[in-house]
Amino acid sequence: MPTAAPARFLPSLDSIIAAHAELRAARPLVQCLSNVVSANFMANVLLAAGASPAMVDNPEEAAGFARVAGAVLVNLGTPTGAQVEGMRQAVRSAVAHGTPWVLDPIGAGGLPWRGGVAAELLQQRPAVVRGNASEIIGLAGLGQGAPGFDSSDDPARAVPAAVELLRNCQAVSASGAVDHLLGWVGDSRESAVPRLLRIGGGSALLPRVTASGCALGALVAAYAAVAVDAFTALAAAHVHFAVAAEIAEAASRGPGSFAVAFVDALDAVDANLLRQRARLMSVQSTA
Amino acid sequence: MPTAAPARFLPSLDSIIAAHAELRAARPLVQCLSNVVSANFMANVLLAAGASPAMVDNPEEAAGFARVAGAVLVNLGTPTGAQVEGMRQAVRSAVAHGTPWVLDPIGAGGLPWRGGVAAELLQQRPAVVRGNASEIIGLAGLGQGAPGFDSSDDPARAVPAAVELLRNCQAVSASGAVDHLLGWVGDSRESAVPRLLRIGGGSALLPRVTASGCALGALVAAYAAVAVDAFTALAAAHVHFAVAAEIAEAASRGPGSFAVAFVDALDAVDANLLRQRARLMSVQSTA
Amino acid sequence: MPTAAPARFLPSLDSIIAAHAELRAARPLVQCLSNVVSANFMANVLLAAGASPAMVDNPEEAAGFARVAGAVLVNLGTPTGAQVEGMRQAVRSAVAHGTPWVLDPIGAGGLPWRGGVAAELLQQRPAVVRGNASEIIGLAGLGQGAPGFDSSDDPARAVPAAVELLRNCQAVSASGAVDHLLGWVGDSRESAVPRLLRIGGGSALLPRVTASGCALGALVAAYAAVAVDAFTALAAAHVHFAVAAEIAEAASRGPGSFAVAFVDALDAVDANLLRQRARLMSVQSTA
Repeated sequence: MPTAAPARFLPSLDSIIAAHAELRAARPLVQCLSNVVSANFMANVLLAAGASPAMVDNPEEAAGFARVAGAVLVNLGTPTGAQVEGMRQAVRSAVAHGTPWVLDPIGAGGLPWRGGVAAELLQQRPAVVRGNASEIIGLAGLGQGAPGFDSSDDPARAVPAAVELLRNCQAVSASGAVDHLLGWVGDSRESAVPRLLRIGGGSALLPRVTASGCALGALVAAYAAVAVDAFTALAAAHVHFAVAAEIAEAASRGPGSFAVAFVDALDAVDANLLRQRARLMSVQSTA
Repeated sequence: MPTAAPARFLPSLDSIIAAHAELRAARPLVQCLSNVVSANFMANVLLAAGASPAMVDNPEEAAGFARVAGAVLVNLGTPTGAQVEGMRQAVRSAVAHGTPWVLDPIGAGGLPWRGGVAAELLQQRPAVVRGNASEIIGLAGLGQGAPGFDSSDDPARAVPAAVELLRNCQAVSASGAVDHLLGWVGDSRESAVPRLLRIGGGSALLPRVTASGCALGALVAAYAAVAVDAFTALAAAHVHFAVAAEIAEAASRGPGSFAVAFVDALDAVDANLLRQRARLMSVQSTA
Repeated sequence: MPTAAPARFLPSLDSIIAAHAELRAARPLVQCLSNVVSANFMANVLLAAGASPAMVDNPEEAAGFARVAGAVLVNLGTPTGAQVEGMRQAVRSAVAHGTPWVLDPIGAGGLPWRGGVAAELLQQRPAVVRGNASEIIGLAGLGQGAPGFDSSDDPARAVPAAVELLRNCQAVSASGAVDHLLGWVGDSRESAVPRLLRIGGGSALLPRVTASGCALGALVAAYAAVAVDAFTALAAAHVHFAVAAEIAEAASRGPGSFAVAFVDALDAVDANLLRQRARLMSVQSTA
């Protein structure tokens, strides 16, 4: 029961390259309701990748901005009471105006208060949910999440939880060493089935840079503003990220220089690099 | 009708070099009421350029700190209700104690709530207003600003709006590929006229680093603490920025490494580099 | 009158190397109640050094998280009303559950409101207090602190204040060109005496990177989660920091590239580098 039109086809390298070209051409405005740790890095990642970030999260402006933004990211990294109110309003406005929005339920599995906020927002049917394995499991209510924010749980373990979350969105990813992406694919809502896509590559240094997961969530939102469907947006963001990380690792001497080279590489990624380095590792049905 | 003494002379390379020497000697304390995206980068830019940053923006402390600070920056990047109250108090205290303050009206043209805050603060007569073209046009009420935060509008279009804003301050800049600076110049308030200074150079990578405009606003405040007049402070900050950006571009492979090299270059800029590379491109009367 | 068991021995190079090995093995979860300037850099420093950061500071979650965290850092860099309430709750919970916590009283000497908050929190007996000389002097009430946040006061001047603060904690450091660390050493609470340890090395570029002091405070908390006692944790964090800074300086061209190289170096530091480069400069009794 996808919430909007399902993807007609499973995301392919060609559709990902097309989404990347769209991103560079359209330079979509992405409204980020983010956190104090990630705001700067997230904005630089979006600028380097080709989007236009705007961190508008207060209750006075969040709803109005969601009308003009190309997509909205809601990230629960360091929520405050006022910011949560801004999130509610941004999401309501996004839904009302057909703006795609992405939920990044940071820490949802281990922290009850924000877990409640995440569950509430999930009812507003985001286009995409992106998290690490613990967060996807925790948000789906299928187990107790880890208290940490940089889970190294195997994303494969989160697949049943991701399928559960597909009741309320069009695509879900559990990021990790091998990213596990799930989304609805079919000709119509009635005939659509959840499909799994796994994306490899990337770099072991990526989780050693704080807010790299947050920035990935923002890039998913950027692609959601331009791609043909939410599943393709999710896949394109993960592939763009993974290819850039692989390039950056070769140019770095540790997590500090990796973060810098990663921003350079997000900018440098083009159709050729995507074609040479993307690792859509396997495609299966989960039905 | 300048709000304080106008500049006696149009800023020159010599007066800019003198201001830079003052900055390095005095290391002024700059109070920044900033935002979650720019706070870290802004502080590092100020430290590298030669100033001493302090991000004191809560209502409990903002007024008291504005008494001891050398200058105050008010940046509307991600305002919260409490922070806006801190801004009001910091500005009132700065005015009462003769501390120069700078207004950076981020997003003022496209977001009504903060636009109202910016218009209110403008009545307290900042020394300088710095923004991109959309923000200057939006704040002056001469047109609808763009909703984005990284406008690529031509700063030349903002000149009439900048002239309008000079009713409430001593100098205004619209930053962009060629920065357009306007300020009062004359022997007395009565005889002063608005003059235009254009500054070239810089780098196309600068707007691809988030918060670079915010950091420029903070550097304007740092120079306002030490320069002979507000127009010279504004010009010195823009020239210091542009020269550092040009040096940094030569040492970078993309927006990530550019941001790092830019901080290095802000530190490296000295009188010789200013003399060799400053591009005061043209000087005209706007009267 | 130490608040918990004093260190049995003055921290030595061997005990510091053992603490470093523990940090890498345990990867402790460090709850940081931090600030908008330092949050990102602090998290990256912790990740590079070997710990797991979590910036949980809202009143809804701070207490619950302090139960599961390995240690808690309370940093007064840019406090808001809500965050101060989160600090109170985190500290109360940490004390109740025996979680070590570290107080970094940024600006306590020069800003009365936060000075009051710092004094109140100090009564809850942190394991460690870390600050620059002005802050240590200001918190102890032994003089008026400087209004700035990057004091270059000589840490030696802060020794009497640090001794005063030892009434309420197990160890205190005044960071600077030569770090001055004080802590209780003895076989029992009754027989313990304050001892002084000085740590040299480091780099003059370190204070030119914003939030480097804040990040050091967070690293102290990380070591407090694993080290045999608070004094050893404090010494290990300072030595790890100083060795990394020395390595980074050799690889940098200014404060921007230094910050990047510093994160790389925090990751690269191992037992050999600690043994070769640590500068425990002198050991004296303060009794």
